[in-house]
Amino acid sequence: MRLRGREMREVVVIGVGMTVFGKHPDSNFIKLGTMAVWDALKDSNIKPGNIQAAYCGSAITGLITGQECNIGHLVLEQIGIRGIPIVRIENACVSGSAAFREAYISVGSGVHDIALAFGVEHVSGALEKEQVMRAVNGASDIEREVSKGMVFPGSFALIANRHIFQYGTTREQMAKVSVKNHRNGLLNRRAQYGMEISIQDVLNSKMLTDPLRMYDYSPVSDGAAAVILCAKDLAKKFTDKRIRVLASSLRSGEFDPKGDITTFPATKNAAKDVYEASGYGPEDVSLAEVHDCFTIAEIIHYEDLGFCEKGKGGQFIGEGKSEMGGKVPFNASGGLMSKGHPLGATGLAQISEIVWQLRGEAGKRQVQNAKIGLTHNLGGYMHGDTSAVAVHLFQKDS
Amino acid sequence: MRLRGREMREVVVIGVGMTVFGKHPDSNFIKLGTMAVWDALKDSNIKPGNIQAAYCGSAITGLITGQECNIGHLVLEQIGIRGIPIVRIENACVSGSAAFREAYISVGSGVHDIALAFGVEHVSGALEKEQVMRAVNGASDIEREVSKGMVFPGSFALIANRHIFQYGTTREQMAKVSVKNHRNGLLNRRAQYGMEISIQDVLNSKMLTDPLRMYDYSPVSDGAAAVILCAKDLAKKFTDKRIRVLASSLRSGEFDPKGDITTFPATKNAAKDVYEASGYGPEDVSLAEVHDCFTIAEIIHYEDLGFCEKGKGGQFIGEGKSEMGGKVPFNASGGLMSKGHPLGATGLAQISEIVWQLRGEAGKRQVQNAKIGLTHNLGGYMHGDTSAVAVHLFQKDS
Repeated sequence: MRLRGREMREVVVIGVGMTVFGKHPDSNFIKLGTMAVWDALKDSNIKPGNIQAAYCGSAITGLITGQECNIGHLVLEQIGIRGIPIVRIENACVSGSAAFREAYISVGSGVHDIALAFGVEHVSGALEKEQVMRAVNGASDIEREVSKGMVFPGSFALIANRHIFQYGTTREQMAKVSVKNHRNGLLNRRAQYGMEISIQDVLNSKMLTDPLRMYDYSPVSDGAAAVILCAKDLAKKFTDKRIRVLASSLRSGEFDPKGDITTFPATKNAAKDVYEASGYGPEDVSLAEVHDCFTIAEIIHYEDLGFCEKGKGGQFIGEGKSEMGGKVPFNASGGLMSKGHPLGATGLAQISEIVWQLRGEAGKRQVQNAKIGLTHNLGGYMHGDTSAVAVHLFQKDS
Repeated sequence: MRLRGREMREVVVIGVGMTVFGKHPDSNFIKLGTMAVWDALKDSNIKPGNIQAAYCGSAITGLITGQECNIGHLVLEQIGIRGIPIVRIENACVSGSAAFREAYISVGSGVHDIALAFGVEHVSGALEKEQVMRAVNGASDIEREVSKGMVFPGSFALIANRHIFQYGTTREQMAKVSVKNHRNGLLNRRAQYGMEISIQDVLNSKMLTDPLRMYDYSPVSDGAAAVILCAKDLAKKFTDKRIRVLASSLRSGEFDPKGDITTFPATKNAAKDVYEASGYGPEDVSLAEVHDCFTIAEIIHYEDLGFCEKGKGGQFIGEGKSEMGGKVPFNASGGLMSKGHPLGATGLAQISEIVWQLRGEAGKRQVQNAKIGLTHNLGGYMHGDTSAVAVHLFQKDS
């Protein structure tokens, strides 16, 4: 698979924006989306009229609001962005990254010069809590998994137990992911649950799906994020704060009934894709934003992305290698776990964080000497070993 | 706006497939999608493993089934297509054409060599009829239109009344669109409602939203369609039946409160785009598949696409110019009205029809000497004057 089209031109990110993630019961997807897109427009020094195409990532807002279609249009007409192609991209929890990737290809191909990718989710409008759970279950396989009770927390509990059994990963190591991400979130004003908690707090939190406890989970949030992409040659006239897209890969899982559930082959394939395409490897990555839907997931991502050997993910966090100030800070933003997880916005919030970090604009959570950043976004059902994983690599444009 | 990227390579369609459209209460979206994709694979002489990326158009199946995400993956795993990027594209009734366009850009850019665009909708699984109506309303604007009773049939009734008032369009002319499309559907074994009806039958059919009667409406159907795209240079080794994509445009409406509701500016803009990009005009088009969601819509499309002057659409059908054997046959397939309208599949069924026609494989409904074919797909809410219109131009590859 080719990662960058043979004839594609270079693409840079020129602006990012993001709302505070959390519970916004008095808001709606239109307001949240508008805020994030305005932020990104301001950040990039371009005008609404400069946007030539828009890709909107949204996964479950339709199931909550009944407004299944036109989500992107209803947001963008608030800003006067009309007439252009506006497409919704849905890829379960990877909708935001997939929207970014389509925007990237469309600019790289030369069809558009400047494209907007934004993601939004509003779940607080749900009439009942069960409605949100049903909607999230719609990102799994309703017939073969959900109807048998195999919802996401159950899947990841199985995965965690197997990782513990197979590699001796400890509950303390898993808890440390939660402690780290909640602490990182404290430094992020846009995070939903920044807080200082101890390993003991995690281990004492409510047991939900053994061995996973409340603090091993990420929430389902309201929020929006936006990223503006531009052909490199044209970007100079708008801004000096250009971040290059080094490589983009989107992969789906491949079901293997005898497969190892402690690894996500789609992550490994996507990582291989971007490392090959860019010429960089995990040793070159300064920081990573990864899909920590559950603590065990982040541990597995260390392994699948090549930051440590298979089975050594627990040790990687145990030794503090993914902490701020460690070898490679993971989820400096707080990750899904503490920043929040509005499905369609998550991938674009990850990219926003990497852009701020590579620009040196991340304030108190700035990763020193950040040169190359990686995003990893995962979603979908278990027996497919995920329906989608997106990995992107970014670098400051010199 | 650039229609073909400066650096894009030529793209051809090498295979198409389609299920019978209609009511398939005992089927589901997985079975329907699988049938259409298999058809397209067989038609193109490629293997499942040749597909490098897939774009799935689906608008409302999630609202009906609860399976909001992974629709493409659940279909394609039946065929052994896994691991590759699989993205759902939603753009209201234009989801299928928008999926085709993303596939086109991805192949044109060189990121992929062979891509699949398919669309599927299954609404017969709904527990109650109201559920389908609610889902279709989700393709409009829930808050500002649907909640006030302004659903699609109401919008098009207003448009029809205005067209009658402004241009003297007659009920008989509108009825003639229905007679033509239902007759064309008789020759299409995949059509839902092929039948011989008279103008009087249309005028005597049940009044639903004055002046529109039952036979002025298109149905909401179950069905799937699939199209396989390939870089032109590589396509020769698979098939001699190559159809070139001449140009692709996707446009959104632009709200003008004082605007004329008898025209869709997005259609005009998209048509202008593809005529400019290809160097061909309406006078070069041998046949067109257009979005006849209501009879009045097809009449307006004649005008907006440049096949006749503004206001002369009624006359155009009145004189039989869009009939089989007329100047430019419109909806030889039967159109949405008689072939059926499974939202996410419709755009890809239009493209399939044009491909069959340009190859000379359309059997009894073959348009003689078909050289250039046009597809036009429309969707979305009224006060935005539609959220999306896609227009594509195709030509036989020599």
